[in-house]
Amino acid sequence: MNADSFDPDERRLAWAYLSTVAQGASRSLSAAIEEEGVVAVAAAVRAGRAGAELSSRLSARAHLDTAAVDLERLHRAGGRLVTPDDDEWPAWQLLGFGMLDKATDAEAAPHALWVWGTRRLDEPVERAIGIVGTRAASGYGEHVTAEIAGDLALDGWTVVSGAAFGVDAAAHRAALAVGGTTVAVLACGVDRAYPAAHAKLLRAVSENGLVVSEYPPGTAPARYRFLARNRLVAALSSGTLVVEAGWRSGARNTATWARRLGRPVMAVPGPVTSASSQGCHRMIRENEARLVGSAHEVVDECGPLLAPDDRDAQVVGSLDGLSGDTALVYEALPAVGTVGPAELATSAGVAVDRVRAALPMLELEGLVVSRDGGWERA
Amino acid sequence: MNADSFDPDERRLAWAYLSTVAQGASRSLSAAIEEEGVVAVAAAVRAGRAGAELSSRLSARAHLDTAAVDLERLHRAGGRLVTPDDDEWPAWQLLGFGMLDKATDAEAAPHALWVWGTRRLDEPVERAIGIVGTRAASGYGEHVTAEIAGDLALDGWTVVSGAAFGVDAAAHRAALAVGGTTVAVLACGVDRAYPAAHAKLLRAVSENGLVVSEYPPGTAPARYRFLARNRLVAALSSGTLVVEAGWRSGARNTATWARRLGRPVMAVPGPVTSASSQGCHRMIRENEARLVGSAHEVVDECGPLLAPDDRDAQVVGSLDGLSGDTALVYEALPAVGTVGPAELATSAGVAVDRVRAALPMLELEGLVVSRDGGWERA
Repeated sequence: MNADSFDPDERRLAWAYLSTVAQGASRSLSAAIEEEGVVAVAAAVRAGRAGAELSSRLSARAHLDTAAVDLERLHRAGGRLVTPDDDEWPAWQLLGFGMLDKATDAEAAPHALWVWGTRRLDEPVERAIGIVGTRAASGYGEHVTAEIAGDLALDGWTVVSGAAFGVDAAAHRAALAVGGTTVAVLACGVDRAYPAAHAKLLRAVSENGLVVSEYPPGTAPARYRFLARNRLVAALSSGTLVVEAGWRSGARNTATWARRLGRPVMAVPGPVTSASSQGCHRMIRENEARLVGSAHEVVDECGPLLAPDDRDAQVVGSLDGLSGDTALVYEALPAVGTVGPAELATSAGVAVDRVRAALPMLELEGLVVSRDGGWERA
Repeated sequence: MNADSFDPDERRLAWAYLSTVAQGASRSLSAAIEEEGVVAVAAAVRAGRAGAELSSRLSARAHLDTAAVDLERLHRAGGRLVTPDDDEWPAWQLLGFGMLDKATDAEAAPHALWVWGTRRLDEPVERAIGIVGTRAASGYGEHVTAEIAGDLALDGWTVVSGAAFGVDAAAHRAALAVGGTTVAVLACGVDRAYPAAHAKLLRAVSENGLVVSEYPPGTAPARYRFLARNRLVAALSSGTLVVEAGWRSGARNTATWARRLGRPVMAVPGPVTSASSQGCHRMIRENEARLVGSAHEVVDECGPLLAPDDRDAQVVGSLDGLSGDTALVYEALPAVGTVGPAELATSAGVAVDRVRAALPMLELEGLVVSRDGGWERA
């Protein structure tokens, strides 16, 4: 499509409408869409005919049907709405949300993603590292962020972050500086520059990568949206790196999301005398994050997150039914004790990225569990 | 004994003679002493009547019977030879050498220890932390060493180190500065100030703690003696802390010894841009050391290494025969997976120091194995 022929179809209008009404993810809305189709659900919500659970969640904004206007305005600004209907939908990256135990209604995959920029969404997030950290980064923290983000971007990795002050901005800037790709996930509409001081940075990100949000244009940032945003930084990355973080830190929230989604979490150490490294040290001590000091070590941990062969997706369902990588990885797990993906890759003869893809599927089947950063038979 | 009535008995003369002839530990010599007694073995070696294996190891120095002179000279200087005959012999600390798999002849407990200072040897090493690191410590490294060593010493822990430049010296000095106890283990005779610049420091250590060596007075330092010395730093400590270490580092050798002996190994992180922290980061990454940043975290890892109840030492030998702490600790181990001593302490209701004492005994019995810094049922 181009600016002259912009004409969203009924389904896209329905996704846009529901995204605006829901203002964030909802498992019950996803389930309804899965069952009845996005157009039917949108019509029902619009008409006040949705079930009680959905109505209580959505009725407050059900009258706000700004879908056509939002899509048109964003289109003119160089953005679009990406939905599960689109080829570029990062389905594999978001699959993990469906596997979560004890998830609240909002701890779900986004219904759709509003993006600013011309790149396809699925491509940059195929090999992507989330780099996050404190807004109050030290000179050391900014330096290390720039080194690692720049090296990763040079190596073809997309740098995903949240466009905040401190570590986030240093990560985006370093990727841009080497002509790399970077994705900024916002807690507000992609048309809102937040923080305002980063308006120019966000424009540069949109030109060399993508600015992404699950909130429709015009949405203002809010605390709960930052927490929801963090889960998307984690989901759209093969692994999450925390460069500097205080003892209590939003970056740790992102790291927790990465762990829940089965992605590697890494942290950079610093002087024990520095407050901005306390959160990183704590995560390393508690085995919540692996210590890394360079882009090379980050890549060692991560490998790109690729979708498994289709046949694997079809046959997992029982131990006998395992095949392909999944079977090889399962067979390579020792009877007792935990092993890491790298060790499994060696013993299974399967590339480490494919091992990383197989493990969450085995976990979904209840065949393996993650423990202390490694994996063991359930 | 005092200077006026110094008169070493036949056994002490035999230990001194064999220590001088062996110049380091020997499993075969220990076995011969165990079987025939120290006086008989000394007489046999002196007369060239020792078995072939011992003779090949000892004949080169068998004629050097300087025992009486060495003991007398060291006695006048304020030192003595501590042997397994003495109450103050740190038998429990050295027990681990007997449990090592695949140990070479020299990877054994020392036959005897030459000490300079008036303190009993067993007391300061009951609650002791080894603090080691690079000679080329950074300002940051020296600062952190001083903070942690000073806090530990104030808390009643003995600081054990090797009197080298850099981290070692900073550790000894910090302990002395707060009126604490410190033990220096040398790779040369305790009468040789090495490095020479530390002559004053070693004297201060001897006055407030002990200077210790397994080599007789007059022995010069040598590379293999530094490696042998490292094993004693590890053995005489409840845990070993590496503050700063380069990528290849003697401190890592000490840490390896601590791990072989079943003691906690800790490392302090620093800037990833600092060469003197690379070894620490590597050990943390490879799960060879736990990240710590304060004396409090060190004590959390260690707890004092105390001998188990005698009844425990007598009854371990079969699973049914376990009793006391040992049985409680074994029963607290989960059927699958590894746990750390602190967690075991909680679930077994046994103090963490006693858990740490019980685990090596259970390992000796083949009932538990250590893996990834934790313990699991064999």
